[in-house]
Amino acid sequence: MSEFELIDWIRRRVVDRPPLLLGIGDDAAVLAPSDKPLLVTTDLVMEGTDFTFPQTTPQLAGRKSLAVNLSDIAAMAGIPTAAFVSVALPQARGESFAEAFFDGLLDLADEFGVVLAGGDTNAWDKPLVASITMLGYPAGKKAITRSGAKPGDKIFVTGELGGSILGHHLTFTPRIEEARQLVNLVDVHAMIDISDGLAADLHHLLGASNVGAVIQADRIPISAAAQQLVSGERENSKAPRLTVPESTASERLPSALGAPHVLHALSDGEDFELLFTVCAADAEKLQRHWPGPTKLTCLGEITSEIGCWLQGADGAKHPLPPLGWQHRFS
Amino acid sequence: MSEFELIDWIRRRVVDRPPLLLGIGDDAAVLAPSDKPLLVTTDLVMEGTDFTFPQTTPQLAGRKSLAVNLSDIAAMAGIPTAAFVSVALPQARGESFAEAFFDGLLDLADEFGVVLAGGDTNAWDKPLVASITMLGYPAGKKAITRSGAKPGDKIFVTGELGGSILGHHLTFTPRIEEARQLVNLVDVHAMIDISDGLAADLHHLLGASNVGAVIQADRIPISAAAQQLVSGERENSKAPRLTVPESTASERLPSALGAPHVLHALSDGEDFELLFTVCAADAEKLQRHWPGPTKLTCLGEITSEIGCWLQGADGAKHPLPPLGWQHRFS
Repeated sequence: MSEFELIDWIRRRVVDRPPLLLGIGDDAAVLAPSDKPLLVTTDLVMEGTDFTFPQTTPQLAGRKSLAVNLSDIAAMAGIPTAAFVSVALPQARGESFAEAFFDGLLDLADEFGVVLAGGDTNAWDKPLVASITMLGYPAGKKAITRSGAKPGDKIFVTGELGGSILGHHLTFTPRIEEARQLVNLVDVHAMIDISDGLAADLHHLLGASNVGAVIQADRIPISAAAQQLVSGERENSKAPRLTVPESTASERLPSALGAPHVLHALSDGEDFELLFTVCAADAEKLQRHWPGPTKLTCLGEITSEIGCWLQGADGAKHPLPPLGWQHRFS
Repeated sequence: MSEFELIDWIRRRVVDRPPLLLGIGDDAAVLAPSDKPLLVTTDLVMEGTDFTFPQTTPQLAGRKSLAVNLSDIAAMAGIPTAAFVSVALPQARGESFAEAFFDGLLDLADEFGVVLAGGDTNAWDKPLVASITMLGYPAGKKAITRSGAKPGDKIFVTGELGGSILGHHLTFTPRIEEARQLVNLVDVHAMIDISDGLAADLHHLLGASNVGAVIQADRIPISAAAQQLVSGERENSKAPRLTVPESTASERLPSALGAPHVLHALSDGEDFELLFTVCAADAEKLQRHWPGPTKLTCLGEITSEIGCWLQGADGAKHPLPPLGWQHRFS
């Protein structure tokens, strides 16, 4: 199968949708003008870091490649519209691998009404690399950034945290719908998706907003997978062993601060839940009127004093470092 | 150096420009609404295929990564605005490599008034992969596609072809300004940039337009580098040995059809010149009023009969196959 045969196969598989005026097959795609701001995000995933084969199927790898970008659009409270997919495909895996990868990706795109508008298909003798750029527009009046948190804001998180290595990092549902519901209900001040880890991404939000925070250790919603992982059940489980970003030394946080699964949930990456802040009045409104079904949890509060603190059940506060994943270049 | 330190370094290096409302550092970039159509193109380049080290510097690799995308925007007769850069950086090459790569890329971005609006920085123990998505808008009333060629149109090419391996594929100037001048002067019917090879990209244009063409072999503008390459001078030259896409068997074309350097120019990729068609009246206008300095050459004519023909000096026509580069997946 040649590059152009693969592109033809993808073209036939893609459902054309607005705002696309011209899609796959020219030197660039053409999208209709819009009176809304344009959201653009891009994420690159790599075999060996974001997934491994054969532990993961190419369908799930394709799904994840798109899903991480949808999660970034959700973090801006955006509606996704068009995706551009560039791949370096491992030659040795052949055409069925390429088709399965795009199948998984396009199934999720269809689910979220996203059109595959273009891309670049390459092959080489190295592991799979996929780079996706996703366009969208704000669901509400404006995009929600990381930088709008105010002292006194309540800090919320969607869903449950930790243990994503057991499967969630491949099968998670990007929180597009939850973000849309949130901005319809309340004035979201700041938002980020948890990709590097709760503690790390909270630090990103605090840094961008130039504020601090106190998090209640016993309020952190721990996933069943996190508990399973920490209690060692994983060794006996049928869960696939996947290579995913390891958190940087959760041991650095004094164990006095929480049970091991709390520390894990604080530092584990790839939850792809939304972390956001709203004023106290909106926090009450959410707690009364949030329709679900995705759980919302209030974790703590934004402070004017810079710094990030984890408060134990005994009331004692301990500094919370930005535990989580980051790439190192040297 | 960590991922976030590199991002900070890039942020300080980037010049913010319209239409950017929010750039590097959040979950997505935010661009101002526009009443013009949006052009989006994406290209992925790989160490070992698009360049090799140390034969190429990281600056030139960064430059090329951006330039190939600018060439796609030029092919739509577009003005580039914002770029998104995702990289998988080879860990072992360290931070100076990463900085040099972005330096080369950002110098070219500045030259073309393009803002680096976002991206994704990753590191791994494999060769460099860079995926760039470029946004823009049509310079004229509309984007020029591959599909508008009409029987009787004259076929033109900018610049000279062949021999890009000797350096041009790294140092070429994307034809943004030439495309802008063209759509200001005449009604360009169809356009493509030559990345896979003149013959291959002509076939793309003909297929999209559902027409045929006759090309005059003796009109093909041959670069000095192509002549040098074919006459074997390269062996003695100081030109860097670079691994670039090899054309697929130019030997397949009967040598009777042209001198070796003509066959080379027909099939060699990475010229990044513009191939376009205009009506006969506009062709005359271009030949009289084209201001230069980039050379324009009329190569032949579009026919209603499907097929692509190369006509020799003796008047004999031979079928011209889509010689050029394509990736194979199996």
